Amino acid sequence: MTEFRRFRIDIAYDGTAFQGWQVQPGHRTVQGELEKAAARLSAGEPVKIHGSGRTDHGVHARQQVAHLDLEWKAAAATALARALNAHLPADVRVLRSRRVASDFHARKSVLRKEYRYFIWNAPILPPYLRFTRCHIRRPLNVTAMREAAVLLEGRQDFTSFTANPRREVESHIRDLECLRILKSGREIVIVARSSGFLYKMVRSIAGHLLRVGEGAVQPGETRQILARKERTAHVETAQPQGLFLWAVTYPPEFR
Amino acid sequence: MTEFRRFRIDIAYDGTAFQGWQVQPGHRTVQGELEKAAARLSAGEPVKIHGSGRTDHGVHARQQVAHLDLEWKAAAATALARALNAHLPADVRVLRSRRVASDFHARKSVLRKEYRYFIWNAPILPPYLRFTRCHIRRPLNVTAMREAAVLLEGRQDFTSFTANPRREVESHIRDLECLRILKSGREIVIVARSSGFLYKMVRSIAGHLLRVGEGAVQPGETRQILARKERTAHVETAQPQGLFLWAVTYPPEFR
Repeated sequence: MTEFRRFRIDIAYDGTAFQGWQVQPGHRTVQGELEKAAARLSAGEPVKIHGSGRTDHGVHARQQVAHLDLEWKAAAATALARALNAHLPADVRVLRSRRVASDFHARKSVLRKEYRYFIWNAPILPPYLRFTRCHIRRPLNVTAMREAAVLLEGRQDFTSFTANPRREVESHIRDLECLRILKSGREIVIVARSSGFLYKMVRSIAGHLLRVGEGAVQPGETRQILARKERTAHVETAQPQGLFLWAVTYPPEFR
Repeated sequence: MTEFRRFRIDIAYDGTAFQGWQVQPGHRTVQGELEKAAARLSAGEPVKIHGSGRTDHGVHARQQVAHLDLEWKAAAATALARALNAHLPADVRVLRSRRVASDFHARKSVLRKEYRYFIWNAPILPPYLRFTRCHIRRPLNVTAMREAAVLLEGRQDFTSFTANPRREVESHIRDLECLRILKSGREIVIVARSSGFLYKMVRSIAGHLLRVGEGAVQPGETRQILARKERTAHVETAQPQGLFLWAVTYPPEFR
């Protein structure tokens, strides 16, 4: 009798050459590469990889989390990472693997997610950063960006900050626990933490904050944009290559 | 009558897809791409680009400096960077351009150069760093590396720390003004500053410090290796992709 066990894997990837996380026929995706590698460990039997959520084309992950059910020795749980890496391409790596209880679910058990959006604010972008930074030539007003960020924090309706806002999702209310802007030399980083994000929410927030930083939108307008609950021209989706899924946190029993 | 003026250009590049700095027939090089772009601004006439020094295949530059003589309006000196960038591929960018006195020479006028060697010291290297970090899986002893580094500082004969030590160079004596090791989380950075470096000297020093950090060589052996003035198995050339030409400094009149 075959016995399947549930494993949690933590994954990092360079999103440049992927058509995002989610499997799509005819496209190279992170989930697709992981499922191919897992099938190699399962005598070719298909294995489903469940991620904590999708990331788009060009978006990177410092820590993505997924689960899979596999016939694999429990005692060798930490060796699963190495076994998967042996079958994975260089732009995706399993950072660690461990066995988890069968009620762990990479998406449903999430406690909190953190995204970081990296901006290089200088006339020229160093070429070795071109796949991992959003490049903004003119000086951004970080003080104005921080004023707008404070207005976005907390539990509210983020309809104005999601792409396809008419998609049928139960609710657009999310709790943005933290939205902070760090600056160090020419690098500006937007840190966003929440128990859940809407589709393209972080890139929409980044796009809005960039317009505020450029002086095209006043920080105070953020309040009206939120209240309108519809997408406006003042909210753009920022480029994907600056975005990293930075960390995914679970309750203590699943860590 | 044509009038040539001398310009200084500061350059950044991603060394991954270049066969190094120096022009070589049949190979893609940084100097080659710059000379092609400059020729476009010179009605197709060949233009020679003189760099501060070579970098090898895979080595990056945060700040490389070069000079060129061009028929170009002195008043538009700062626009030369933009004009060159319009003809350059995405992996090399001119950061700035300005007119300099005709006795400025990118190599001969150098006052000091700084290189930085980036190491990622953890079991797994995040894929988005794979072209810009040297990956060392096992924990390095940074204290031992610092002990060895102190012995390498100062004015001495670096024959043991250059590749092709038998090449005919006048002298292997160099003044290593500063060799410091920074550590921040999983990242270890070797900072090396000198008025002049020998061929592959920084990568040889990095290779030796890595062996010390791994415990394969004792820090005190550095003194004997230096004194022997010949290449030994205790000195390896570290991988190129961790190395950045970080800064090139000139006397005040050429800044």
